[in-house]
Amino acid sequence: MDLDDARALAGERDAADPLASVRERFTLPEHLVYLDGNSLGPLPVGVPAAVADAVQQQWGRDLITSWNAHGWWDAPRRVGARIARLVGAHDDEVLVADSTSSNLFKVLVAAVRLRPSRRTLVIEPGNFPADLYVAESVTDLLGLTLVHVDPGDLGEVLGDGVAAVCFSHVDYRTGRMHDMAGITAAVHEAGALAVWDLSHSAGALPVDLTGCAVDLAVGCGYKYLNGGPGAPAYDVRSPLTGWTGHARPFAMEGSYDPAPGIDRMRNGTPPMLSLLALDAALDAFDGLAMTDVRRKSLSLTSFFLELADEFMVPLGFEPVTPRADDERGSQVSLRHPSAYGVVQALIARDVVGDYREPDLVRLGFAPLYLRHVHVVRAVEAMLAVIAGGEQDHPQWQQRTTVT
Amino acid sequence: MDLDDARALAGERDAADPLASVRERFTLPEHLVYLDGNSLGPLPVGVPAAVADAVQQQWGRDLITSWNAHGWWDAPRRVGARIARLVGAHDDEVLVADSTSSNLFKVLVAAVRLRPSRRTLVIEPGNFPADLYVAESVTDLLGLTLVHVDPGDLGEVLGDGVAAVCFSHVDYRTGRMHDMAGITAAVHEAGALAVWDLSHSAGALPVDLTGCAVDLAVGCGYKYLNGGPGAPAYDVRSPLTGWTGHARPFAMEGSYDPAPGIDRMRNGTPPMLSLLALDAALDAFDGLAMTDVRRKSLSLTSFFLELADEFMVPLGFEPVTPRADDERGSQVSLRHPSAYGVVQALIARDVVGDYREPDLVRLGFAPLYLRHVHVVRAVEAMLAVIAGGEQDHPQWQQRTTVT
Repeated sequence: MDLDDARALAGERDAADPLASVRERFTLPEHLVYLDGNSLGPLPVGVPAAVADAVQQQWGRDLITSWNAHGWWDAPRRVGARIARLVGAHDDEVLVADSTSSNLFKVLVAAVRLRPSRRTLVIEPGNFPADLYVAESVTDLLGLTLVHVDPGDLGEVLGDGVAAVCFSHVDYRTGRMHDMAGITAAVHEAGALAVWDLSHSAGALPVDLTGCAVDLAVGCGYKYLNGGPGAPAYDVRSPLTGWTGHARPFAMEGSYDPAPGIDRMRNGTPPMLSLLALDAALDAFDGLAMTDVRRKSLSLTSFFLELADEFMVPLGFEPVTPRADDERGSQVSLRHPSAYGVVQALIARDVVGDYREPDLVRLGFAPLYLRHVHVVRAVEAMLAVIAGGEQDHPQWQQRTTVT
Repeated sequence: MDLDDARALAGERDAADPLASVRERFTLPEHLVYLDGNSLGPLPVGVPAAVADAVQQQWGRDLITSWNAHGWWDAPRRVGARIARLVGAHDDEVLVADSTSSNLFKVLVAAVRLRPSRRTLVIEPGNFPADLYVAESVTDLLGLTLVHVDPGDLGEVLGDGVAAVCFSHVDYRTGRMHDMAGITAAVHEAGALAVWDLSHSAGALPVDLTGCAVDLAVGCGYKYLNGGPGAPAYDVRSPLTGWTGHARPFAMEGSYDPAPGIDRMRNGTPPMLSLLALDAALDAFDGLAMTDVRRKSLSLTSFFLELADEFMVPLGFEPVTPRADDERGSQVSLRHPSAYGVVQALIARDVVGDYREPDLVRLGFAPLYLRHVHVVRAVEAMLAVIAGGEQDHPQWQQRTTVT
């Protein structure tokens, strides 16, 4: 296959794409190939008006009455219910609140307290660094033992001392998707609770928390859910955890199941403008079947992997994302010795991905707004970067950017 | 003094008010007497454009590059520095982040860990309920003892077992202002750390954290700072606490003094739209001296107390807010057996205050946008409510509102 073939193939696939029109639900600069929606999702078209209404009518005109009149009070649960449908949870099991880190802290504390006789928390070293810090804080505070283990080696550490196991559904660096059903079953077999971070899967592929009998989960609002910069996160708990029977699950009371009365709710008042932006952003998922979303995502990532093998591997790029569909999230990461420079040079060519330490070019293929033609444009840009040696440009040697 | 005298006096004082024009910095419905700015501050005029820019240009057009290009990265510190000037802290001592409850959790854990040999945390029972819940969670998690004590009785419990003392600067119910300098000195005398909640003082009156040598503080962004519904809160730490010498102050690392690198920052990504609204809202304080703000606040509350004595006390209202200027925040609360109905009937007459259990009518007199004429209008409305028996209207018997 040469690049002309690839362009033709992309055109065919885009023409046959049942989700093609979903791109119109987003405001995306036309010249950009935006492969960073796994870091910050783009702006859905309904958000500006929704936020302007929240600011000018709800806050400005109706003031404090908006807690009732505009549903601010119910928003964390109402928006949570919308996310529940994307992750296979029941409507009343998801709360939108705080940041992913704060939520993970809350659910990990709750998890280990639900297994008070067990003194070990297990986490995979490939979790997002913030998750690792949070887990360390929890075990440090509570005098527990933190064990790092790769999911493949989980069997070696599971035992009756393990209170909970926390894994990421999709690895933020490699894009590897873990077997949520199998791992959760193994965790339960050992009498422990399973906690999942959905930040890199929810919104990009089907998640079935109920089917997998997951106990607790958290996820991010601003990646594949497109909720805006720093959009509030969410946490999920299954009633199967015995949660409601627990006397005092730390910090969740007053947020998950608030008593009537505004004072109690204020135990963590949500950032309403950001929350209402997320609410409007979720309109982008209206009427979509996550199975269709998944099919498109796999089509995009497998197409990119195919082109990468053809064109990029000979130039020194090494794909680290699994080839097997059932092990791949919605991104492809490539190892390259000049990964940082490659990413910067790509951005200069309007192909926006990101860099992950120490040597990864990370490209997110969000299925709602990307087309196969963008896959080809990304490959063309990478070829042009390498052909021109642009990745070694002196300006990339000084790493000042944080994206 | 009759009501005609009161109106005339209000007119004179408003005419002489050096802050009179500051009301123009807010979008307030003209018909409202808004005495609930201590619950949700009104909309500052610059916020709609700032938020629209954040949504459409920064998020929508510039996407992930905005972390650098539009200063998202620095925003928690930059906005924190603006708040620092209102609370007498140094610019680099304030971080905008999370909710007040989350911040209080962080600073209380940090405080007690800085005094590891001491096993008691002291808090006043009059603190905001969420503060009490948070303190209970902290002591519960860490196996410490929580002692509730009124500030006046602090001397009875201070001793070498006390790690930290947490008080509210201004009591959210009564409006009583505590002696921050004296209490902090007594706490230090006993070798403990002083933690203050500024939610009901910052923005309404001068706060001098440095002058009082306060160790740690938290406060709310959506009351007197007018940052919008659920605006992020802030926390303050003085370097005198020995903070920087502490190896691993829980959860503050990565947020207070983040290392370079976006991953580390994401340990609690701030809700950017809400944070940028708060940033724009703080423009309302530009060029104002907090001593002038305080003078106006005292003028409003003392005027209201004077009228309350004259007109309301004979009708069964009992002011519970201190008369002494140096013991009063920026609100006046009145006890009344039908307080809930009074508040609802006042709202129906466009005088918006709020109700606090079990029998308080709480009226906030935010000095930036209220005039003395509003004080008189509030009294007139209260007289009309009582004259018509409106507080006993059947519709107020069913307490459905949460405000």
